[in-house]
Amino acid sequence: MDPRIEEHAKILVEWSTEVQKGDMVVITASPLAHDLVIAVTKEVAKSGGSSIVLMQSGEVMRAYFDGANDETLKLFPKHMDALFDNCDVMIGINAPVNTKALANVDPVKIITRSKTNKEINDKVMTKRWVGTIHPCPTLAQQGNMSLGEYQDFAYNAMLIDWKNESKNWYLMKEHLESHDDIRFVGPETDLYAKTEGRIWIAGDGKKNMPCGEVFTAPIEDTVEGKIYFDIPFMQQGKVIEGVRLTFEKGEVVDFSAEKSEDVLKAIIETDEGSNKLGEMAIGTNRGIKQHTLNMLFDEKIGDTIHCALGMAFPDANGTNQSAIHVDMIKTMKEGEVTAGDEVIYSRGKFFYEK
Amino acid sequence: MDPRIEEHAKILVEWSTEVQKGDMVVITASPLAHDLVIAVTKEVAKSGGSSIVLMQSGEVMRAYFDGANDETLKLFPKHMDALFDNCDVMIGINAPVNTKALANVDPVKIITRSKTNKEINDKVMTKRWVGTIHPCPTLAQQGNMSLGEYQDFAYNAMLIDWKNESKNWYLMKEHLESHDDIRFVGPETDLYAKTEGRIWIAGDGKKNMPCGEVFTAPIEDTVEGKIYFDIPFMQQGKVIEGVRLTFEKGEVVDFSAEKSEDVLKAIIETDEGSNKLGEMAIGTNRGIKQHTLNMLFDEKIGDTIHCALGMAFPDANGTNQSAIHVDMIKTMKEGEVTAGDEVIYSRGKFFYEK
Repeated sequence: MDPRIEEHAKILVEWSTEVQKGDMVVITASPLAHDLVIAVTKEVAKSGGSSIVLMQSGEVMRAYFDGANDETLKLFPKHMDALFDNCDVMIGINAPVNTKALANVDPVKIITRSKTNKEINDKVMTKRWVGTIHPCPTLAQQGNMSLGEYQDFAYNAMLIDWKNESKNWYLMKEHLESHDDIRFVGPETDLYAKTEGRIWIAGDGKKNMPCGEVFTAPIEDTVEGKIYFDIPFMQQGKVIEGVRLTFEKGEVVDFSAEKSEDVLKAIIETDEGSNKLGEMAIGTNRGIKQHTLNMLFDEKIGDTIHCALGMAFPDANGTNQSAIHVDMIKTMKEGEVTAGDEVIYSRGKFFYEK
Repeated sequence: MDPRIEEHAKILVEWSTEVQKGDMVVITASPLAHDLVIAVTKEVAKSGGSSIVLMQSGEVMRAYFDGANDETLKLFPKHMDALFDNCDVMIGINAPVNTKALANVDPVKIITRSKTNKEINDKVMTKRWVGTIHPCPTLAQQGNMSLGEYQDFAYNAMLIDWKNESKNWYLMKEHLESHDDIRFVGPETDLYAKTEGRIWIAGDGKKNMPCGEVFTAPIEDTVEGKIYFDIPFMQQGKVIEGVRLTFEKGEVVDFSAEKSEDVLKAIIETDEGSNKLGEMAIGTNRGIKQHTLNMLFDEKIGDTIHCALGMAFPDANGTNQSAIHVDMIKTMKEGEVTAGDEVIYSRGKFFYEK
């Protein structure tokens, strides 16, 4: 086995989720992640935990959507609920067998299912959890690389000294929490929100692997202005591109997308919280050099900000309880992030890089 | 997709487990069974159920055994227990990534783990459940065939009209239940047991797919005599061959194996019930023409009998509660099965084939 897989597993179990003796662990993974599942299972056992593995794949989901009617989509999976009720740690491994498996499913069906499962997803958020990927041909293809290149790309971003790397991100958190608001300014963009009483979280690889972001949940009804997300992203098997949003009193009052506007519309109309921001964030990982149509990596790039429609992380003191959480990213090489009277980032440099 | 996979899925969901609206379904499968998982998921959704998939593989188990110490092996997986507590149906799909993954694990470790999980396995037995295989290169290799040949072999045994095929097996059940004992006679073999008050079960594809056997749990302390199991079988990744057992008052008082006697010894010494029979059975499936080192198929062959050490099926009124259930098979082409004064099978023919 590639020793990088074993190192990756060690980071997930020891650093990200800190598995302890007696822990009940759920691993979710597609068939393509079998090697990492093997390595993680061994690390969990060495730590004295007990793991079981849920097989997840877009093709299986697709078959479900093909077979399920509306009543079935609304059937609460109480067996899955019981499983997560009784787990301490969730390690989610993404290694899609086909990133487009859900491309031609009615977005309304996907969102109905998200609503049905919301309670379970909320539950997982209260556990120790981490989301990661396992390098596989589909992710390499999506990122426009060979598998070997993609493995180098991914492990370079993940196999680092997280404790040391994240020190500056904790410094940024402190600076941001000393102010009461946040502002993103750049091409076609001027977005403002109040953040008083909200927690800024330094993403140090405990929940996402790789990580490298500092984020909060803005005060829901204070988001004002407009923003242009220039980096494409995937949702429901489709690429969404060139999203423009305008906010008044926290709500989306105008939206457009250059590609897949129908998916964007379905997202915004999901529920009460889905037309408000649940997250505003600054990417800080200098090790990720290019976009790969994979949010886990793209939103961490050091010269970007991102915002998410929908659910806020309770740890940030956010209140948005939407069933969805959809991140969108903007390059900031020509932009500026300010908090109160302090410049946090300007045109390629963080304040701690001056 | 091979239409036989879809037909297989339909049989599992509609005939074997009779999935109903609202059913909570657990599918267990290795990565190699992904295609059948897709097909089963769609059928379950069409029936109005909700399914989740547990990924199981010998290599993952091997990693677990490599990492776990004795304390960890004894840690009860309460998340898995909660999952099965809340499920109605279990569909187990065997498609090993490597049939020898556990070959070099200490048998004692495997048995310790079996004991830890016994309560959960007992629970699954009270649900609607079926065990099946998905044709894959490893099973073909084990059966000494190409994948294409193995697919033909397996689907010929599985894609049949189970309702009609099983009529003679129900007739055999009636005949057997009209007597109070069972006797297997053949080369190096004369095994007797009382069966009064026990249920003979006609295996009609509800629990095993393929099926084709009529079996009971003998009265535990009445098993007397000796038997020679001439067909090799696998346990814990090892081939066990040429097993000879002698019983007195239901207990194994002498045993030997021509190959892997150490594994046989560990099995017999597992717990209180593991040195007694939990099952005596007659294979009735005329569609299976050759041994493939796979118990699911081999024990169903029409000219064999088999016995299992360990756990009895509660439905048969058996009381053996062992953590293990290990089947062993004997060719009967030169043998005879009698119940009371009736010949049930003799040298190649069942009574209903006369």
